[in-house]
Amino acid sequence: MILEHVVLDIRPGQEPAFEEAFAVARPLIMSAQGWRSVRLERCVEQPSRYLLLVEWETLADHLDGFRTSAAYEEWRQLLHHFYDPPPVVEHFELVTAS
Amino acid sequence: MILEHVVLDIRPGQEPAFEEAFAVARPLIMSAQGWRSVRLERCVEQPSRYLLLVEWETLADHLDGFRTSAAYEEWRQLLHHFYDPPPVVEHFELVTAS
Repeated sequence: MILEHVVLDIRPGQEPAFEEAFAVARPLIMSAQGWRSVRLERCVEQPSRYLLLVEWETLADHLDGFRTSAAYEEWRQLLHHFYDPPPVVEHFELVTAS
Repeated sequence: MILEHVVLDIRPGQEPAFEEAFAVARPLIMSAQGWRSVRLERCVEQPSRYLLLVEWETLADHLDGFRTSAAYEEWRQLLHHFYDPPPVVEHFELVTAS
């Protein structure tokens, strides 16, 4: 299992529109091969900041699968114009959980 | 439910010692009032980077409870010397999950 981790800074004032667009985009990722879960969280201290956490079966499911798909192109067009600056995507592997 | 989010950059070479210290420290947070879950993940792209995610019942359980406790002092002494730079702690609230 791989955790995709992205901190998203949204253009101030566009938070409601971003959340609406995310609701439209969400099924695109949920139908991808190897998708396991998706979670969007909003920052308490900086309300224009969001945290996107996506669990994938493998790293390739995200990078070689979803990111090269037509669905990703649609995802990108729905969401990327809200981001400032462009976000950094990183992947994590579980060490321990309780 | 509040998600505590911390990206931890560990001094290079000290990753195994950090993971061992984290295993010792973990029960300290798990016995705190309002603690719900804890998860430590390691970055694929930058192996000295870790992600700490802790679920709390309320923000106060973390900030006014755990962070002012004797257990936190012990946690700090076990773990903080591994961090470079000092990490930024933020809190998030769920928007949507699937």
